[in-house]
Amino acid sequence: MSIIVVVLCGLLSVVYGVWAIQTVMAADAGSARMQEIAGAIREGAQAYLRRQYTTIAVVGILILVLAVLFLNVYAAVGFAIGAILSGVAGFIGMHVSVRANVRTAQAATQSLAGGLDIAFKAGAVTGMLVAGLALLGVTVYYGVLVGPLHKSFADPKQAREIIDGLVALGFGASLISIFARLGGGIFTKGADVGGDLVGKVEAGIPEDDPRNPATIADNVGDNVGDCAGMAADLFETYAVTLVATMVLSAILFAGSPKLADLLVYPLAIGGACIITSIIGTFFVKLGMNNSIMGALYKGFIASAVLSVLGLGAATSLLIGWGEVGQVAGKVITGQNLFVCGLVGLVVTGLIVWITEYYTGIGYRPVRSISQASVTGHGTNVIQGLAVSLEATALPTMVIIGGIISTYMLAGLYGTAIAVTTMLALAGMVVALDAFGPVTDNAGGIAEMAGLPKEVRKSTDALDAVGNTTKAVTKGYAIGSAGLGALVLFAAYTSDLSYFAANATIYPYFLNVKPDFSLANPFVVVGLLFGGLIPYLFSGIAMTAVGKAAGSIVEEVRRQFRENPGIMEYKVKPDYGRAVDILTRAAIREMIIPSLLPVLSPIVVYFGVLTISGSKSDAFAAVGAMLLGVIVTGLFVAISMTAGGGAWDNAKKSFEDGFVDKDGKQHFKGSDAHKASVTGDTVGDPYKDTAGPAVNPAIKITNIVALLLLAVLAHG
Amino acid sequence: MSIIVVVLCGLLSVVYGVWAIQTVMAADAGSARMQEIAGAIREGAQAYLRRQYTTIAVVGILILVLAVLFLNVYAAVGFAIGAILSGVAGFIGMHVSVRANVRTAQAATQSLAGGLDIAFKAGAVTGMLVAGLALLGVTVYYGVLVGPLHKSFADPKQAREIIDGLVALGFGASLISIFARLGGGIFTKGADVGGDLVGKVEAGIPEDDPRNPATIADNVGDNVGDCAGMAADLFETYAVTLVATMVLSAILFAGSPKLADLLVYPLAIGGACIITSIIGTFFVKLGMNNSIMGALYKGFIASAVLSVLGLGAATSLLIGWGEVGQVAGKVITGQNLFVCGLVGLVVTGLIVWITEYYTGIGYRPVRSISQASVTGHGTNVIQGLAVSLEATALPTMVIIGGIISTYMLAGLYGTAIAVTTMLALAGMVVALDAFGPVTDNAGGIAEMAGLPKEVRKSTDALDAVGNTTKAVTKGYAIGSAGLGALVLFAAYTSDLSYFAANATIYPYFLNVKPDFSLANPFVVVGLLFGGLIPYLFSGIAMTAVGKAAGSIVEEVRRQFRENPGIMEYKVKPDYGRAVDILTRAAIREMIIPSLLPVLSPIVVYFGVLTISGSKSDAFAAVGAMLLGVIVTGLFVAISMTAGGGAWDNAKKSFEDGFVDKDGKQHFKGSDAHKASVTGDTVGDPYKDTAGPAVNPAIKITNIVALLLLAVLAHG
Repeated sequence: MSIIVVVLCGLLSVVYGVWAIQTVMAADAGSARMQEIAGAIREGAQAYLRRQYTTIAVVGILILVLAVLFLNVYAAVGFAIGAILSGVAGFIGMHVSVRANVRTAQAATQSLAGGLDIAFKAGAVTGMLVAGLALLGVTVYYGVLVGPLHKSFADPKQAREIIDGLVALGFGASLISIFARLGGGIFTKGADVGGDLVGKVEAGIPEDDPRNPATIADNVGDNVGDCAGMAADLFETYAVTLVATMVLSAILFAGSPKLADLLVYPLAIGGACIITSIIGTFFVKLGMNNSIMGALYKGFIASAVLSVLGLGAATSLLIGWGEVGQVAGKVITGQNLFVCGLVGLVVTGLIVWITEYYTGIGYRPVRSISQASVTGHGTNVIQGLAVSLEATALPTMVIIGGIISTYMLAGLYGTAIAVTTMLALAGMVVALDAFGPVTDNAGGIAEMAGLPKEVRKSTDALDAVGNTTKAVTKGYAIGSAGLGALVLFAAYTSDLSYFAANATIYPYFLNVKPDFSLANPFVVVGLLFGGLIPYLFSGIAMTAVGKAAGSIVEEVRRQFRENPGIMEYKVKPDYGRAVDILTRAAIREMIIPSLLPVLSPIVVYFGVLTISGSKSDAFAAVGAMLLGVIVTGLFVAISMTAGGGAWDNAKKSFEDGFVDKDGKQHFKGSDAHKASVTGDTVGDPYKDTAGPAVNPAIKITNIVALLLLAVLAHG
Repeated sequence: MSIIVVVLCGLLSVVYGVWAIQTVMAADAGSARMQEIAGAIREGAQAYLRRQYTTIAVVGILILVLAVLFLNVYAAVGFAIGAILSGVAGFIGMHVSVRANVRTAQAATQSLAGGLDIAFKAGAVTGMLVAGLALLGVTVYYGVLVGPLHKSFADPKQAREIIDGLVALGFGASLISIFARLGGGIFTKGADVGGDLVGKVEAGIPEDDPRNPATIADNVGDNVGDCAGMAADLFETYAVTLVATMVLSAILFAGSPKLADLLVYPLAIGGACIITSIIGTFFVKLGMNNSIMGALYKGFIASAVLSVLGLGAATSLLIGWGEVGQVAGKVITGQNLFVCGLVGLVVTGLIVWITEYYTGIGYRPVRSISQASVTGHGTNVIQGLAVSLEATALPTMVIIGGIISTYMLAGLYGTAIAVTTMLALAGMVVALDAFGPVTDNAGGIAEMAGLPKEVRKSTDALDAVGNTTKAVTKGYAIGSAGLGALVLFAAYTSDLSYFAANATIYPYFLNVKPDFSLANPFVVVGLLFGGLIPYLFSGIAMTAVGKAAGSIVEEVRRQFRENPGIMEYKVKPDYGRAVDILTRAAIREMIIPSLLPVLSPIVVYFGVLTISGSKSDAFAAVGAMLLGVIVTGLFVAISMTAGGGAWDNAKKSFEDGFVDKDGKQHFKGSDAHKASVTGDTVGDPYKDTAGPAVNPAIKITNIVALLLLAVLAHG
C-alpha cells in the first residue's frame, strides 16, 4: 500500500515533466536565424549523446552478460533498469534543454521574467525526472520483487536476490554517471577552453561569436556536460543512496516486525519530497526587486521548509514516533530518525551557504582572487589554488557534524536517513542547476543571431545566476555523494559481516574475519590506494581536457587559415566538424579513467589475496580503499569545484569594474582582467570536468565492492 | 659499548663538518664587490634566522615549562635537546652556505670543477651535521638515560621516562621544523614571486639584477628556505623516525633479552650510514664528460651501495642473522630485518627515479607542460596541475609496496627498520640539496657583481642541477616523512594499548578500549578531520606567500618611484628594507598555520571526549586523525612538490629553445615562454612553501598525539 503511494508520487513528477515540456514547447521559438542556430546545437548534442550512449551500451551489455553469469537474472534486470532510467532522465532533460534555449532567448526579448520562466521550467523537467525516475525505478523494482515475485527477506536466498537486484540497479546508474560526467565534462571544457584560446585570445573575437567554428560545440557542451552529466550524477547519488539505505535496513533490522516499513521509509521520504519540490517550483517567480537569485532561492527554501512537513508525514504515517527497533543495543525511535532527516536538510542548507561564500562575488575568497589578478597571471592562480584548498575545511566540518550527530541519534541508520533526506531535495536542486545551460545557450543564441544588446543583457543576467547555482549544486552533489558513499561503505562492512556470520550458506566467507583496524597494515595500504584514485583519475581527466582543447585549437586554426572568408562573415564556418572532433575526443578519453574506479576494488581484492593469501586481509584492504577514495575524493572534488567557481566569478568581477585595495578600478580588457581569464581557464576543467567526475568515481568504487561481495557469495 | 661506537660515528660527521668548513673558508672570497654583495646576503639571512629563532624560543620556553609541569624533567630536557640541536644544524649549515656562495662564484671563474667542489662541500656540511647531530642527540640522550642515570626498561615508570624523554626530543625537532619550513618557505617564495613580478614583469629587468631591491632578499630566501628549512625538516624526520622505531621496539620486544640490542639497532644503522655517506662525498668528482648531475649521482650511488655493507655489519655485529624475538606470534629474524633495510634503500632509489621522471626535462610530464605553454597561460597551468595530480600515483605505489613487503617480512618493526635505513642516507641526500642554494646564490652574486658571462654560464649549469636535486630531495623527504609518520602512528596505537593493558599503573586508561575499526563513525570522522589539515594548512600557506609577495611588490614599486636613480644605476636600492619587510611577514604568517597541526590532536581528543563522553571514542578519533593527515598529506605534498618542479623545468626548457610537436622552436621571450613563467610562479609556493611544509605538519600531529598519551598517563 505505502509502496503504491510512493509510486504515485514518482508518477506525479512525470506528470509535472510532461506538463512543463508542453509549456516550454508552446513558447515562441524565435526567428528563422535563431532556430537555425538552435538546430545546430540540438543536432550536435543529440549526435554526441547518441555516440556516448552507444559506447556505454557496449560496456553495459558486457556487464549484463557478466551479471547473469556471476550473479542472477534479478541483478541483470536491476542493472538494466538503473542504466536505462538514468539514460532516459539525461536524454529527456537534454531534449528539453536544447529546445528551451532558443525559446528563452526569444522570451528574453520581451521580459526578464519570461526568460526566467522558460529556462527554469526546462531545468525543472530535468530535475523532476531525475528524482522521479530514480525513485520510481527503485520503488517499482523493489515492489515487483517483494510483491508479484514473492521474494521475502525471511528467506536468506531470496533476501540476497532482492539486495543484489537493488545494488545492481545502483550500479547501472553509476555506470551511466561516470561515463556521462567524464565524457560530457571533457567535451564541454575541451570546447570552452579550446574555443576561447583560439577565438578570444588569438583571433580577438568575442565569446559566442558566430565566426568561431567552436561556438556551436561550446553550446553543445553546456548541454551534454552541465545538463545530461549532472542529471546522471544526481540520478546515481539518489538511486544509490536509497539502495544503500535499504540494504542497511535489511541487515540491521533483519527479523524485526517493522522491517517492511523501514525498507519503505527512505522511499516514502523521497516521495514526499518530490511533492514538496514540485510545489516549490511554483514559488520561483521574479519579485519586485527583479532578483533572479532571489526568485530561485524562494523556490528552494519553500521546498526545504515544506520538506520538513513531508518528512514528518512520512515518519508519522509509516514508522511512527516511537521505537522502531534496536541496532547494536541502541534503541532507534521514529522521532530520532525524523531529527536525522532534519540534520540532512540543515547540512544541505549549510553546504549551499558555504559554497556561495566561497564562490560568490562580494565575499572575501573571490575578492582575494580578483585582487591577486592585479599583480598578474601567476598570483591569480596562486590565490585561486589557496582558496580552493581552504574551501574544503568548512564543508568537511559540516559533514563531520552531520555524521556525529546522526550517529549519536540513531547509529549508522540515522546517517543513512540524513543523506536520504538530503537527496530527497535533488529534484529541486537539479532544477536550479539544469537552468544554467539553458540560459548559457540562450545567451549564445542571442549573440550569434545578432539580437539587440538589451536581450543579451537579460540572458547575461540569467547566465550569471546560472553560474552561481551551478557552483552551489556542485557543492551539494559532492557533499551528498560523500555522505552517500559513507552509507555505501557501511553497507559494505555490514554486508561482509552478514556473509561471514552466515558462512554455512556462503561457504566462500568461511573463516573470513576482516580486521578493519587502522593498526592492520592492509588497511593502511587500502587507504593509500583508495586515496590515490581521485588523484590519478582527476589528473587523467585534466590532461584529457587539455588534449581535447588542443585538437579544437588546431581545427579552428585550420578553418581560419583555409577559409579566410570566415573572419569576414562571408563563409560560414564548419561547426559540425568541431563538434565531431570533440565527440570523438571525449568518448575516447573517457574510457580509461572511467575504468580506474570500476576495476580498482577487484584489482585490490585479488591483488592482496594473492600477496597475503588471506581473504580477510583482502576484504580489509578493499574496505579501507573505499574509505580512502571517500577521504581524498571529498577534498579533491570540493577544492576543484569551489576553486573553479571562485576563479570564474573573479573574472566576472572585472566586467562591472573591480576596485582594488588602492581604490583603482580595473575593467574588462585590463591586464588584471586578462590575468583573471587565465584563472578562469584553469578553473574550467577543475570545476566542470575533474572535480564533478570525482563524485561518481567515489560512489562507483563503493558499489562495485558491494557487487564483488555478492559475486563471491554467489560463486 | 655499541652506543659508544654509534657516538663515535656521529662525532665523525662533526669532524667532517669542521674539516669541510675549513676547506670552504680557505677558498678565495672574490673581489670587494662580490664580498659586499655576499655580506648583504649574509646579514639578511642571519637577521632572519635570529628573528625566527627568537620567536620559536618564546614558544619553546612555554612548551618547556608545560613539559616540566605535565610530564617530567626528562621530557623537558629531551625537548630542549631536540630543538637546540635542530637549530644548531640549520644555523651552522646556513652559516657555511652564505659564505660558500661567494667562494663558489669566485671558484667558477677558474673552473666548473672548482665551483662544484666548494658548493658541494658546503652542502655536505649541512648534510652531515643534520644526520650527525640528530644521531648524536638521540644516542647520547638515550645513553645517558640508561647509563649514568640508570633508567631501565624493566621498571615501567623508568621505561616511560626514557620513552617520554625520547619522544619529547622528537617534538623539539618537530617544532623547529614546522616553523623553519613554513617561515623559510614564505620568506623565500615571497621574495622570489614578488621580486619577479615587479622586476622581470613590470620593470623588465633580468633576474638577480642589482637594481631590483628584492634581489638580496631573494638570495637570502634561498638560504633560509632551501638550506635552513630543509635541514630542520630532515633533522626532524631523522630524529623522529629513530625515536619512533625505538619506542616500537621497547613496546613490541618488552621483556625480550635482546631488547637492549634492538633498541640500539636503528642507531647503529644510522651510525654505519654516516660513515658510508662521508665516504660517498669523496666520490663526487666531475668526470671527463663534465656532467655535474653525474658527479653527484656517483656520490649518492656510492653511499647507497656501501650502506648495504654498513647495514649488514650493523645487523651482524649487533643482533645477528637469527631470531631476535617474536611479535604477535611472528618470528622476527635479523636476516629479515636486513632485507627490510634493503627495501628502505630500494624505496629511496625508486622515489628518486620517479621524481626525476616527473620533474626532469626530456621526459613526458615536463614536455607536456612545455607543449601546453604554446597555447597559453591557462593550458600551461592546466597541464601542470594534471601532472601534479598524476605524479602522486607511482610514489604511493612504491610506498604501498614498501609497507606490504616489510610487514610480511617482520611486521610493523620491519617497516620501521626500512624507514630508518631510508633515512640513514639523509646525510648524503641533504648534502645534494643544500648544494642548491649555494649555487643559486653564486649565480646571483656573479650577476650582481658583473662577472664575465662565462662565469654565469658555469654557475647556471650548477644551478640547473641544483633545481633537479632539490626536487629529488623533496620527493625523498616526503616519502620518508610519510613512512616515518606511519611508524609514529604504529607507536601511537602500540603505546595506547600498552597504557590500556597496564591501567592499574595508568588509571586514566581504565576501561579504555578504542575501536580503531573503520566501521566506527568516530574513526571516519577522525580520518576526515585529519584529511582536512594538510588542505587547510597548505591553503593558508599559499595565501601567506601571496601576501608576502604583495608586500614586496609594493615596496619595490615605492623604491622605484621615490628613487628614479635606481633604474639608472645611480642610487643603490635599499635591500635591507625588503629583507626586513619579508622577515616580518614570514614570521607573522607562520604562527597560525603552524599551530594548526600542533593543536589538532588536543582539540580532537577533548572535542570528541566532550561530545561522546567516551575516552575510547576520543582516542580512536585521534588515531584516525593521524592516519587521515598522513593519507591526504602524502598526496598534497607529493603533488605540490612534483608539480612545482615540473613547472620550473618546463620554463627552463625554453631557455635552450623548446621544439613543439609541430617542429616550431620557442625561445626565451616568446609567448610560450611567458606562459611557462606563469606556471613557474604558481609552482614556486607549491613546491617550496606549502608542499614541503606539509611534511613537518604530518609528523608533528603524530608526535603531539604521542605526547598527549604521555601527559594523560602522567596526569
